[in-house]
Amino acid sequence: MTSAALKPGSVIGIFGGGQLGRMLAQAATQLGYKTHIYDVFANTPAGRVSEYHTAAQYDDLLAIENFAKACDVITYEFENIPSAAILEAGKHAPIFPSAKALEISHDRFTEKTFLRDQANVPVIDFFKIETMEELSHALSVFDGPCVLKTRRFGYDGKGQIKINNPKEIKSGFARLGGADLIAEKFAPFVREFSIIAARDQNGEIACYPITENVHKDHRLHTSVAPAPDPQNISEEAHAITHRILKAFEYVGVMGIEFFEMSDGRLIVNEIAPRVHNSGHWTQDAGCTDQFEQHIRALAGLPLGSPKPKHTVRMTNLIGDEIKQAGELAKQAQTFVHDYDKQDIRPGRKMGHVNEIIG
Amino acid sequence: MTSAALKPGSVIGIFGGGQLGRMLAQAATQLGYKTHIYDVFANTPAGRVSEYHTAAQYDDLLAIENFAKACDVITYEFENIPSAAILEAGKHAPIFPSAKALEISHDRFTEKTFLRDQANVPVIDFFKIETMEELSHALSVFDGPCVLKTRRFGYDGKGQIKINNPKEIKSGFARLGGADLIAEKFAPFVREFSIIAARDQNGEIACYPITENVHKDHRLHTSVAPAPDPQNISEEAHAITHRILKAFEYVGVMGIEFFEMSDGRLIVNEIAPRVHNSGHWTQDAGCTDQFEQHIRALAGLPLGSPKPKHTVRMTNLIGDEIKQAGELAKQAQTFVHDYDKQDIRPGRKMGHVNEIIG
Repeated sequence: MTSAALKPGSVIGIFGGGQLGRMLAQAATQLGYKTHIYDVFANTPAGRVSEYHTAAQYDDLLAIENFAKACDVITYEFENIPSAAILEAGKHAPIFPSAKALEISHDRFTEKTFLRDQANVPVIDFFKIETMEELSHALSVFDGPCVLKTRRFGYDGKGQIKINNPKEIKSGFARLGGADLIAEKFAPFVREFSIIAARDQNGEIACYPITENVHKDHRLHTSVAPAPDPQNISEEAHAITHRILKAFEYVGVMGIEFFEMSDGRLIVNEIAPRVHNSGHWTQDAGCTDQFEQHIRALAGLPLGSPKPKHTVRMTNLIGDEIKQAGELAKQAQTFVHDYDKQDIRPGRKMGHVNEIIG
Repeated sequence: MTSAALKPGSVIGIFGGGQLGRMLAQAATQLGYKTHIYDVFANTPAGRVSEYHTAAQYDDLLAIENFAKACDVITYEFENIPSAAILEAGKHAPIFPSAKALEISHDRFTEKTFLRDQANVPVIDFFKIETMEELSHALSVFDGPCVLKTRRFGYDGKGQIKINNPKEIKSGFARLGGADLIAEKFAPFVREFSIIAARDQNGEIACYPITENVHKDHRLHTSVAPAPDPQNISEEAHAITHRILKAFEYVGVMGIEFFEMSDGRLIVNEIAPRVHNSGHWTQDAGCTDQFEQHIRALAGLPLGSPKPKHTVRMTNLIGDEIKQAGELAKQAQTFVHDYDKQDIRPGRKMGHVNEIIG
């Protein structure tokens, strides 16, 4: 599929008015586009830097129709948008990434199945779990611990629990609500890393270098890129990334999380069909950043360079940590990004800081 | 003067809704601030990326009062704001750079006089011109050609004309309206360059490296920085810059244009009390960019690093050239900035492109 590039002045619709929507809007406006945010709240971080804003529920199909008719192309900042909303919007404007990518990634089971069977990439062994008997069966097949997860709406470590042995089946099953679950064999990885990549409307792919991620309290704490690569897994990770983007016929930026095993094997943990927290370092690395890259893909522009000029460490500023922003900003070559959220709340991502370290 | 830093979520007012206001707004929102644009037009490049917008004339003092009361600090994107507007706004919110800087730079004659007598920096010989006799006198003192300029409202080569000999006095005088003029001795410079610098509220100064500027049709065409420095004038240019900022007790970013002579002498051509077209390269150079630097200064934040990680060539996209943006953007490490102007007009600055060249 080859399309003409979206003309400057065109309107890019974004479902979701949070920090990812905000940074997408900022990138879009730098390229001369206008943005229209759709969010359930009227006053949002993204809406405050956008020309247009619709405040309505995701089941308000008339509002969605009006929103979509006012947009030249539509994207989203998070994957848990109801399918009905996407279907309605898609009647009136093109949506990237596609409804298919969104639909598949809604659900950990369909996502892992797709990755394994359609993209032919390595994922951890997994079973769909509806009953305690199925969980018991899974544990015996794995012959070791597993991670039990809700199939939908999990993020930042929410909706998952480690099951170490059969004794923990009952309580774990109960804690996650006991339905629509997935059991994944526990992977004793040596490192978590991610790849941010984009595919444009002509099928060209641009992959950023591997990003090493450190979590704290189940939330992303720091990302460093380009990350060291002692086991030389970079090429393989990029090959896997290409297979995934092609399998989806994907258009836009995707975040792919990997586990790296001690023997150099790679496992794809999960994907996010959108710009990704672990790609924020790209903003200050001397290459096209992930937000601009995403806008380029959906606007029908050629992708920019994903090759950073320097090494960057991104640190999330969570809750009160945003108060350090002024102090952090005193350091040379340290770049603060503040999301202008109304209230500081514990655990809330308030901003991030990118530091050039090499 | 030491002030507490402006809290994220505070409102920064900007007089002027063009591309400089737009890029200031984008930098402000990255730091978590909100922006309020004041412009005579309702639909402006800066207004479209700002939360608040006032559309009113510059002599509407009630509108200015209401605007200023809604802002925590105020700045401007161009220097030709009527003094009465600045005075009114200044009653209700701090304004950076100060009304004094604006007032002096309104007028080429007061500016040059201030630079020579208060800042003690080298300027070209000049005379205030009210009559043809004064122009005739100036020509004879210079013993060579001069450039005759209107004292106010000149930009991009408008409002100036070269007078080569006494025969051209009459026509030149008539063409510029014949009053409130300044005659400057013609300077046969080998190069034009500029320095972008910022001074914060504690008097700290951050100077970017020298930027070499090439004009086309009297408009800035390209800027390259850090520029080569075969005559080793960089240190002297920075010392001059420091003297100017201190003399003004300046807060914010200033653009200073220099002539470099064949013997290594420097002449300050003019100053702009605002972010400057020749500083756009800073956006993609791996240092704090001029827009963020300006916001930092007026928000009471410490200045960021002005030391670029790489060499950048900025090229203005004038009129139809904006149509090349998509093609230009295909090159690796080329960054397009489009101002989302409503209409393409010949001679209009529509955007610019920054290219990392070293």
